[in-house]
Amino acid sequence: MEELLLETINIIDAPKHVNETVKIGVWLTDKRSSGKIAFLQLRDGTAFFQGVVLKNIVGEDVFDEAKHLRQESSFWITGEIHEDTRSKFGYEIQVQSIELIGTSEEYPITPKDHGIDFLLDHRHLWLRSSRPHAILTIRNEVIRATYEFFNKEGFTKIDAPILTGNAPEGTTDLFHTEYFDHDAYLSQSGQLYEEAGALAFNKVFSFGPTFRAEKSKTRRHLIEFWMIEPEMAFMHQEESLEVQENYVAFLVQNVIDHCASSLEILNRDVELLKKYTKTPYPRISYDEAIEMLNKGGIPAKWGDDFGSPEETYLADQFEQPVFILNYPKAIKPFYMKPHPTRDDVVICADLLAPEGYGEIIGGSERAVDYDYLLQQIKSAGLNPADYEWYLDLRKYGSVPHSGFGLGLERFLTWVTGEDHVRETIPFPRLLNRIYP
Amino acid sequence: MEELLLETINIIDAPKHVNETVKIGVWLTDKRSSGKIAFLQLRDGTAFFQGVVLKNIVGEDVFDEAKHLRQESSFWITGEIHEDTRSKFGYEIQVQSIELIGTSEEYPITPKDHGIDFLLDHRHLWLRSSRPHAILTIRNEVIRATYEFFNKEGFTKIDAPILTGNAPEGTTDLFHTEYFDHDAYLSQSGQLYEEAGALAFNKVFSFGPTFRAEKSKTRRHLIEFWMIEPEMAFMHQEESLEVQENYVAFLVQNVIDHCASSLEILNRDVELLKKYTKTPYPRISYDEAIEMLNKGGIPAKWGDDFGSPEETYLADQFEQPVFILNYPKAIKPFYMKPHPTRDDVVICADLLAPEGYGEIIGGSERAVDYDYLLQQIKSAGLNPADYEWYLDLRKYGSVPHSGFGLGLERFLTWVTGEDHVRETIPFPRLLNRIYP
Ligand SMILES: [Mg+2]
Ligand SMILES: [Mg+2]
Repeated sequence: MEELLLETINIIDAPKHVNETVKIGVWLTDKRSSGKIAFLQLRDGTAFFQGVVLKNIVGEDVFDEAKHLRQESSFWITGEIHEDTRSKFGYEIQVQSIELIGTSEEYPITPKDHGIDFLLDHRHLWLRSSRPHAILTIRNEVIRATYEFFNKEGFTKIDAPILTGNAPEGTTDLFHTEYFDHDAYLSQSGQLYEEAGALAFNKVFSFGPTFRAEKSKTRRHLIEFWMIEPEMAFMHQEESLEVQENYVAFLVQNVIDHCASSLEILNRDVELLKKYTKTPYPRISYDEAIEMLNKGGIPAKWGDDFGSPEETYLADQFEQPVFILNYPKAIKPFYMKPHPTRDDVVICADLLAPEGYGEIIGGSERAVDYDYLLQQIKSAGLNPADYEWYLDLRKYGSVPHSGFGLGLERFLTWVTGEDHVRETIPFPRLLNRIYP
Repeated sequence: MEELLLETINIIDAPKHVNETVKIGVWLTDKRSSGKIAFLQLRDGTAFFQGVVLKNIVGEDVFDEAKHLRQESSFWITGEIHEDTRSKFGYEIQVQSIELIGTSEEYPITPKDHGIDFLLDHRHLWLRSSRPHAILTIRNEVIRATYEFFNKEGFTKIDAPILTGNAPEGTTDLFHTEYFDHDAYLSQSGQLYEEAGALAFNKVFSFGPTFRAEKSKTRRHLIEFWMIEPEMAFMHQEESLEVQENYVAFLVQNVIDHCASSLEILNRDVELLKKYTKTPYPRISYDEAIEMLNKGGIPAKWGDDFGSPEETYLADQFEQPVFILNYPKAIKPFYMKPHPTRDDVVICADLLAPEGYGEIIGGSERAVDYDYLLQQIKSAGLNPADYEWYLDLRKYGSVPHSGFGLGLERFLTWVTGEDHVRETIPFPRLLNRIYP
């Protein structure tokens, strides 16, 4: 009779089955045993917990089988869920029987330390370890919360194409492919398409992969990464900044609310994260930023773009993320709206994350005037014919509009407190790494 | 005083502001006028409605301005929201003032008929028209509901890479690029990566763009399209079929619940759609399908793959989508689980949509045995070295697992009742079409 009632559950649902006998499909992550008791560290992809095997309960054969289980072998386990106040998870299973599914000989990732190249070579297996599992669980929550945010705010998702015949910010660092009889390039940004979308749907966003064939090997660069790019019609920059800070605060709040155990595995300070949920975020101008850097003894001239040392110093002056407004026109893309009273700056903002994580958002109000934009395209050395459709947006009912882009992996690196962006994407593409 | 209280709203929110004076940023889609009254057809990206301009209320100047507004010019409009029971939308605005934002001379898409090539050349503007707007509003809802479904079912989104060094189903129809010193290809499917994900996270899904450099010009093919690919550990095919039918029914139900006005614009029969929300869906075997085709006078031999005529005939025998189970091994990919008692078929299913829309889902249980899979890879003429990481999944704790792929645009073509898949994606990539 009991066999018939046996429920198959996931570890994550153990709290709902205390003192019940259940069946779970699991892998072994680690084990230790003495003469009469074995502790099996188990995972099923939803969570990690412990199985306790008592020789005098299961008998000699099952105890022996448990003792000889290998790391990452898979099996069905039957047993009773108990509270376990000593563990982080709070529950364990007292094992009654074990049914082996898949063997595992010499699993390459052992509890000892491995170099990063070895781990990345085994990324398909490394995903099973608790730290990658925690980071990608947070990634999933940020993706979920992104859709929740933009849906509740009335945005329509307009997927920008990946294969394009032109490139928004010039012609370097592009992946090229042959598209039947044409040349094609992998998109570096969906923004121009989102502008067409905003003029048709009012508020839109894209969320997809983007590509930079950049020969840089820093801890902030991926070859393939995911971007969220919202674009809003009838909206000026100041209102766009409010959308941006509300969005970032919403993401951080949802990670705090829904990823407590992942944050704990990563030792991420939740009190620090809570500060980032307070809005508004401070705003300073690029001019003020230059002044602030110089006062701090950092040599920056008006007109310079900011690198990591400058961004870190500026962010360190604030407890929240900080917007730097209105950069010099010469270091920003052609499509940004010119300042109404100054020739040398554009209406834009970068959002810098605290703790040295640098820029997580870049955004601007967009130029609306046809003649200005055409001139900008020519000055940037781009071919106006490639931008004919984009110029049409200023020819037929041009309206004020603003937008921004958030790099998912840079955002996650900050929220998870990781050192390197490569650990925040399931299968990172890096310089000379395209496997697995 | 009143000016200070004036609220800027979107058309979609008009029902909440009846008899209030509001301000809305709009474009003109059409107009007609007599001596004393002008009707402006307006859109703001959120919805379409009518503005009524009465000469004796606004005066000669504003009336004259209204009469001379051009198609797709943009302007701020101020006026009072009234109920309008004669229109589909149910509300209109009685105009008080107009403030021009952007002019529009000779907008290319006029109310007359245009050829499809002309419309696709102007896709960046065509998006503004009511039919594309309705179709892509439904697309947005299907995307939203997809995330809702997989989140509530405990799936983790694991983004598969786009740039890969190998290809799951052979080496034809691939876009090639140079990845620094390596060759790389654009992904045709994230499935193999999702299998690694399922063994680390239990239930996972990907949702991203995929690419086929296929020289076919049918109404069911896009070069770049979006796929949803769930993969579930410890799950056999029968349980996967339940996930599939629940998912499809959930999507259709959400479209019915949230996209009534879009379905009306498209003249889509909602009573028909309601039938597709009833589960379970019928299941027949491939063997039975062959028999059914032959009885219907359609010459199909055991071993043939099904094309559009066969799929249409089979689907026509049912009122709901129908699963065709266990196709011949010879016409299916290498990774499918062999049938336990028959050498000639694999454990798989295609889901065929009614009304001649054909296959919308392909799925299978996956082969779990290392030696079988290695043999299959060799038989398929693939290089085992490229699949070393994938074979690892059978080496270290292999478990039963199943998954499927739903093509977003094919699904949408069916739900919206469109003729051609090209209208269900914002910027379609077709043979010889990569602009805009
Ligand atoms: Mg920057
Ligand atoms: Mg097929």
